[in-house]
Amino acid sequence: MAGGISLHAVDVASGVPAAGMRVEIFALQGATARSIAQGVLGANGALDHAVVTGTGVQAGVHEAHFHLGDWWRERGAAQAAYFQEVAVFRFNVVNLQEHYHLPLKFTAWGFALFRGA
Amino acid sequence: MAGGISLHAVDVASGVPAAGMRVEIFALQGATARSIAQGVLGANGALDHAVVTGTGVQAGVHEAHFHLGDWWRERGAAQAAYFQEVAVFRFNVVNLQEHYHLPLKFTAWGFALFRGA
Amino acid sequence: MAGGISLHAVDVASGVPAAGMRVEIFALQGATARSIAQGVLGANGALDHAVVTGTGVQAGVHEAHFHLGDWWRERGAAQAAYFQEVAVFRFNVVNLQEHYHLPLKFTAWGFALFRGA
Amino acid sequence: MAGGISLHAVDVASGVPAAGMRVEIFALQGATARSIAQGVLGANGALDHAVVTGTGVQAGVHEAHFHLGDWWRERGAAQAAYFQEVAVFRFNVVNLQEHYHLPLKFTAWGFALFRGA
Repeated sequence: MAGGISLHAVDVASGVPAAGMRVEIFALQGATARSIAQGVLGANGALDHAVVTGTGVQAGVHEAHFHLGDWWRERGAAQAAYFQEVAVFRFNVVNLQEHYHLPLKFTAWGFALFRGA
Repeated sequence: MAGGISLHAVDVASGVPAAGMRVEIFALQGATARSIAQGVLGANGALDHAVVTGTGVQAGVHEAHFHLGDWWRERGAAQAAYFQEVAVFRFNVVNLQEHYHLPLKFTAWGFALFRGA
Repeated sequence: MAGGISLHAVDVASGVPAAGMRVEIFALQGATARSIAQGVLGANGALDHAVVTGTGVQAGVHEAHFHLGDWWRERGAAQAAYFQEVAVFRFNVVNLQEHYHLPLKFTAWGFALFRGA
Repeated sequence: MAGGISLHAVDVASGVPAAGMRVEIFALQGATARSIAQGVLGANGALDHAVVTGTGVQAGVHEAHFHLGDWWRERGAAQAAYFQEVAVFRFNVVNLQEHYHLPLKFTAWGFALFRGA
């Protein structure tokens, strides 16, 4: 896959994609965060957005935000039942020719995110 | 994606797919293990095999084996540099209509494998 | 910490240690598996056993088994609600002076196990 | 263990604790981040600080920052060799009687952090 950033999230407590989760990608520059993509994950757990094919992506530091708290609340969870409001993943886009696939595996109590392929 | 089992592996120490890694899937029945798929992961880190679309898959207990030790040795690692010869993941296929995607994220010292989507 | 093998497990869907889970450690030699430790995890999620300080541990290939299926069933889960009967982690003890801490983070749909410290 | 926040980090590519890594914990309130603990991880990969026993910890949203980029650079890594400058973990302290153990398992290309015990 060519350059670009793709987000994906699976609730690994129940084994299902996080359909309906709100996500956002920011490009950081010093103290400034500029939103380059936002949306809601689809039924397959992926964000369908032009950023996937690299549109608007430049080299530099980025943050991906996954809004876990809203997602749990919409499913009826009380706050004591989950640990994080937002899963934040801050990363470097070093090479614009490479694709950065970010597959979040989360539960109410933490997450794993290792760059995929 | 329809029923079937798919394997994928990424070396998350270096951030690259585990091209060339030997893998095998077994169906277990009591003390017997019957091989239903074997092969070598492609450049994208995935196994290209009919089992991905469900051919030969039945309900029951399975094991996926990822041959990490051979893979590290082919890359020149001494045994003290890695922890596992084989990453074994034993799982149930409960519903043949569902797809079981098994994305292994490994290093020389452990792995994460949560069912993907 | 000196040589030895320690097991620990946390259910990261609910954020609590896996008290009561049955575990076992085997030393493998060819096709033979010799049990060197078995027991049930304590309230803190750890196995209290002489193997933790190295008693009976020799260099070579080992398997740690965590009996997830029994644990889920005792908590009322139907089989379709979990993915694995047993989490198997096969590893090398290379240096008897080193401690091998194996902290399992599991859900109904997978696990992460990277050697701790 | 009683209330408090403890940090721990292991480089799971090499299997060793992240001795010398700079870390910081912030309490967030709206747009304000107040530092409640900072320091450098010890030889065992843990932060030795009064916050571990709860000193200065209040209910609310917190962020733990693990300064991966500095740590990699001190070990001679070029920027293309690692993915993150800072691993950020944003979490809720809901119950002051509970302990929040945050064991980071990281590589150059991602991390897993599930609340431990």
